[in-house]
Amino acid sequence: MSVDGDDGKIIEGPDSPSSVGWVSAKKMCLYGDTANPLVLEAGGSIGPVEVEYETYGELSQDKDNVIVICHALTGDAHAAGWDREPFGPLREYRKKKPGWWNSMIGPGKPIDTNRFYALCVNVLGSCYGSSGPSSINPETGRPYGLSFPIVTVGDWAKIQFAVLDRLGIGKVLAVIGGSMGGQIALELALSEPERVGSLAILSAGPRLTTQGLAFNAVGRNAIISDSNFSGGDYYGKDRPIKGLAVARMMAQITYLSEESMGVKFGRRLRGKDAPDYSLTGIEFEMESYLNYQAASFVERYDPNSYLYMTRAMDYYDAALIWGGGDLIEAMRRIKARTLVVSFSSDWLFPPELLRELVSALCRARHPLSYVNIPSRYGHDAFLVETDAVGRLIRSFLKDPKVG
Amino acid sequence: MSVDGDDGKIIEGPDSPSSVGWVSAKKMCLYGDTANPLVLEAGGSIGPVEVEYETYGELSQDKDNVIVICHALTGDAHAAGWDREPFGPLREYRKKKPGWWNSMIGPGKPIDTNRFYALCVNVLGSCYGSSGPSSINPETGRPYGLSFPIVTVGDWAKIQFAVLDRLGIGKVLAVIGGSMGGQIALELALSEPERVGSLAILSAGPRLTTQGLAFNAVGRNAIISDSNFSGGDYYGKDRPIKGLAVARMMAQITYLSEESMGVKFGRRLRGKDAPDYSLTGIEFEMESYLNYQAASFVERYDPNSYLYMTRAMDYYDAALIWGGGDLIEAMRRIKARTLVVSFSSDWLFPPELLRELVSALCRARHPLSYVNIPSRYGHDAFLVETDAVGRLIRSFLKDPKVG
Repeated sequence: MSVDGDDGKIIEGPDSPSSVGWVSAKKMCLYGDTANPLVLEAGGSIGPVEVEYETYGELSQDKDNVIVICHALTGDAHAAGWDREPFGPLREYRKKKPGWWNSMIGPGKPIDTNRFYALCVNVLGSCYGSSGPSSINPETGRPYGLSFPIVTVGDWAKIQFAVLDRLGIGKVLAVIGGSMGGQIALELALSEPERVGSLAILSAGPRLTTQGLAFNAVGRNAIISDSNFSGGDYYGKDRPIKGLAVARMMAQITYLSEESMGVKFGRRLRGKDAPDYSLTGIEFEMESYLNYQAASFVERYDPNSYLYMTRAMDYYDAALIWGGGDLIEAMRRIKARTLVVSFSSDWLFPPELLRELVSALCRARHPLSYVNIPSRYGHDAFLVETDAVGRLIRSFLKDPKVG
Repeated sequence: MSVDGDDGKIIEGPDSPSSVGWVSAKKMCLYGDTANPLVLEAGGSIGPVEVEYETYGELSQDKDNVIVICHALTGDAHAAGWDREPFGPLREYRKKKPGWWNSMIGPGKPIDTNRFYALCVNVLGSCYGSSGPSSINPETGRPYGLSFPIVTVGDWAKIQFAVLDRLGIGKVLAVIGGSMGGQIALELALSEPERVGSLAILSAGPRLTTQGLAFNAVGRNAIISDSNFSGGDYYGKDRPIKGLAVARMMAQITYLSEESMGVKFGRRLRGKDAPDYSLTGIEFEMESYLNYQAASFVERYDPNSYLYMTRAMDYYDAALIWGGGDLIEAMRRIKARTLVVSFSSDWLFPPELLRELVSALCRARHPLSYVNIPSRYGHDAFLVETDAVGRLIRSFLKDPKVG
């Protein structure tokens, strides 16, 4: 498998003066031996699967400079730089913008591609290159739809290690992720502790809150309730984008905070001084923003994937999986030096929940750094507070050691 | 108009040992002179309108013992006792349960019907007896649907005073309400200050937060996105109950708190020890609760009414309406002695927002009592914390004076 994504010309993107430049996504076929498919945590099996990933920087001769970046719920492998050849039906938008963590990854940036070889793998079940419900089932020649097996955070960790195996990489310097990506990073450090030198978790806990479960349930319900849903078999027909839009609008609220929305939108009307008095039209800036976010999201995301991703988050419970319900017991497995970062206004993964993780790590006598960054940007702060996050990650990666 | 609702036999309802007993809802026709219809704040007009209300206790000879109770978003005039004759297409459920604030209103209860004459008016636009989008438009012989005019909190206050006028009641001892009802109570005290002796506002602020606007927008979007919505003209056909269910599930989350949901449901699975691994089925207790709440709600509520109610809440901004944007200036209008009650875990009308109201009242040199009740029950606390709320209201009403 060629690793040619990093050979591209370095350009100065308009929004990204220190971009890693053009990158090409790579695909890897895994579990291609049909006698030995991937057996999933939930009981299903599948094979072969395609896995999309991107890499930034050069792999050292000893393959000892690897940092694994884990993406969030609706993210993809395109973490940095500019996509040279976006592919797939929903991915036209990727031509237009740099990777989702472009501020963190690149030459001289906190995850410095002059030193490190960063790698980001798109999770199974997504619609961004790795196999998922919108992929063609080779047995039927049609998209899997809901016949795609249920995937879990544990499966995602397993697949990321499989990719590393294939690339001949044993131990990694660090795994880093925010939100759902933080849970994948945690799971990487829990499932193969010897292979993970450092672990950085941002805006993520060892499980969803009850409120998080509830919001996910509403989002899925909105999609399933859409008359175009057709049991998930809507490919080639009208997609259930109205339901997906509602799910996204709601989720968007949980990514922000009252303070950030108050400052950005308040109660301001959209382009007028007095309301039109309309039930179904746009009156407030806040509504306009949500509509815009939803409209852009449904263009680029598969409703079925939203079901798979949110369910995987629902099921993840590190204490239950690795400690029989005891989070301290689970944390005893971890060998990686650890950084945990929460944000004061994050209410999807609130600081109290991250402090539970921190407390369990402490009580498991595990060395760690914990920072609660004061921020008004809510859950999205891990993407927005680039200065504060950049300083922490830069310092955390100053002297990493493999395994 | 006869006031016969209070003559019913006193019974001991199973869930309500100190019930006011059977009550009969009353209806009043207002603005029956078609030359002088009700002119609404948003510019529309309508007439005649029907207004449903209930009363509890006996009106004193001097008509000086009146307390106005204001209901919340999906509430109705049935605040106490047991409905003798529920009517209307969606109101079968009302046979089965006592009024929504039955713990507060009755003989010997905090709003003591041995002393007071309590009155609760269903707001215009609702589906619980007062005219609304599901009512028959006399001009067409068909339900109004979205041709029903936009109503505001100001209109509701105006109509409540019209009902009082018709009953020959001038000044009232007190107006009391929680959530949207608290906003109506505030508006009653702002719009006719001389007529309101005391004002009690629970779990409500002078406006919605930006987050509140956002949640309302998502709820309406869910309804409008339902393929059965048909521009609001769905009467006699399949109603957009899937959209309404999604709206209610989401709203339900905002009425609770992470703590109360965590204690009540946590991450417990529904009737099983291990998950079924199902995307669309019920796995968690939390999901089961939301589904149950939504299923029961769509049986008893009209989707169009949900649009009207939430929009009215969106538009309400006491500072803008009465103070040109200055809340202190607005509060200078109020003559009523005032009680403001917030709940520590309420994040729909958070204590900080209520303290803004309190601060404005103080700076307007207005005497008031403010209590922030420590509670884990979130926004619903005003309905759930019956002991604490009851003590406050009882004490507040100990020595009320008319006007």
